Amino acid sequence: MSIEETPYEPYKRYLLEIAYDGTNYSGWQIQPHRVAVQQRVQEILTKMYNGQPIHLIGSSRTDAGVHAQRFAASYLTPVRPDIPTDKILRAVNRQLPGDIKLRTVREVPLEFHARYDALGKAYTYVLNLGDPSPFTDRYTWRPIHRMDVEKIRAASQVLTGTHDYSSFVVERSLIDEAVRTIYRIDVQEFGQFCCVTFVGNGFLYKMIRCLMGTLEAAGAGKLSPEAVRRILEACDRTVAPETAPPNGLFLMKVFYTPEERAGFKLENVPFY
Amino acid sequence: MSIEETPYEPYKRYLLEIAYDGTNYSGWQIQPHRVAVQQRVQEILTKMYNGQPIHLIGSSRTDAGVHAQRFAASYLTPVRPDIPTDKILRAVNRQLPGDIKLRTVREVPLEFHARYDALGKAYTYVLNLGDPSPFTDRYTWRPIHRMDVEKIRAASQVLTGTHDYSSFVVERSLIDEAVRTIYRIDVQEFGQFCCVTFVGNGFLYKMIRCLMGTLEAAGAGKLSPEAVRRILEACDRTVAPETAPPNGLFLMKVFYTPEERAGFKLENVPFY
Repeated sequence: MSIEETPYEPYKRYLLEIAYDGTNYSGWQIQPHRVAVQQRVQEILTKMYNGQPIHLIGSSRTDAGVHAQRFAASYLTPVRPDIPTDKILRAVNRQLPGDIKLRTVREVPLEFHARYDALGKAYTYVLNLGDPSPFTDRYTWRPIHRMDVEKIRAASQVLTGTHDYSSFVVERSLIDEAVRTIYRIDVQEFGQFCCVTFVGNGFLYKMIRCLMGTLEAAGAGKLSPEAVRRILEACDRTVAPETAPPNGLFLMKVFYTPEERAGFKLENVPFY
Repeated sequence: MSIEETPYEPYKRYLLEIAYDGTNYSGWQIQPHRVAVQQRVQEILTKMYNGQPIHLIGSSRTDAGVHAQRFAASYLTPVRPDIPTDKILRAVNRQLPGDIKLRTVREVPLEFHARYDALGKAYTYVLNLGDPSPFTDRYTWRPIHRMDVEKIRAASQVLTGTHDYSSFVVERSLIDEAVRTIYRIDVQEFGQFCCVTFVGNGFLYKMIRCLMGTLEAAGAGKLSPEAVRRILEACDRTVAPETAPPNGLFLMKVFYTPEERAGFKLENVPFY
């Protein structure tokens, strides 16, 4: 526990799962001159604890414009007021703006760390393969080229496993280690929507959007699975296609147990 | 054809079906100091016809914040350029903002009138009976009270038929005739969402939202079907409950044939 986190003796730690429409935010993390989701939630928690400052530790950052179904963040409470979890959920949701809502609140051990204890995450990228729509354009990417879903699926299989994903990282600092494991990439169709779900032990900055840009090129018939493999092996961002836009991307779940990670199913996380 | 509509000899008339997320608009109709959907679409059409002013005639107004799946509006074209319907659809959609899209474009007789020829409309009001959500709050109303869907259904049956709906009209001008026919009110559940669909020959200003306010009170157990009948028969707005908020309301379809009106099914109009 850092002194930055809280000025009072730690009493309880709560883990929140937070859903948000990222359209109007700079992402999760507080940035100068932009409104962050973290800020909105912290302000309301701080008010609820009578002005005692509450600091949220998020499981990661999310980029500006990216959405979340189950972003994870934890905080330490002061001794008083000791507010039960169901009351925290209702009271915070009443005060949050319409585009941010808590999904769950539960107590975790004091030593729990939302970032370091995470065993992985699931992200889903949603492609709209049909007509444009006023009700889904903020939540989907509609590629210009006609997509062959089977080609997306074939290329996605090349990208799973344990690899150096340097070809799929943006604004990488020199000290970052780019080796990650992607356990699964599921490609599923629901009517005119194609959902590409990435389950991994962790993802680098803009990595999913970079991977998705490559899968889109594969779906358009511009890259064979073999070409995708060569891009992966090049460990060079300049050889991979453009980064996909943020608005099609959802952080679906942060895993804290191996069972959660192995058992993740997109169908179990409602999109509404 | 009024001289206001077009300054050129009429050549063809097209009927557009337009979907929009009403959140950021003053409604369909152009109003001083607010951006209207009509304005956005007209600007793009006028540009497409090389600056020859295009005037859209809408089937009705929609209130600020109300959404549409199939709003209907028509316009007369100049002789040149003569643009095919599929090209109009694609070209206009490319230029429209993400929250307005054309669904269909078809040629209709020159004498067709989008308002006077309409034989009725279907509106759907969406209630969220579950937890709040960042992804549906702009498209649903979440009543504070627990809803009994059977009570909503029972009360809705009282409101169908041919009646003077004066108890459910806001800002009514004295010359308005308030007799309308509601053919059906369907109450359907889809997971945590309850959709109330009104099929009628026409609706007065804010009439659906007023009816929905009364159905909500019925769903909360505050009004029996008999009490709803007394409100209807009173022909007095002051005896009915509050008007429901605009964001749960969708104009689903405008009917120009009796067959369309009789055969309307919510399931056939996708919400995305």
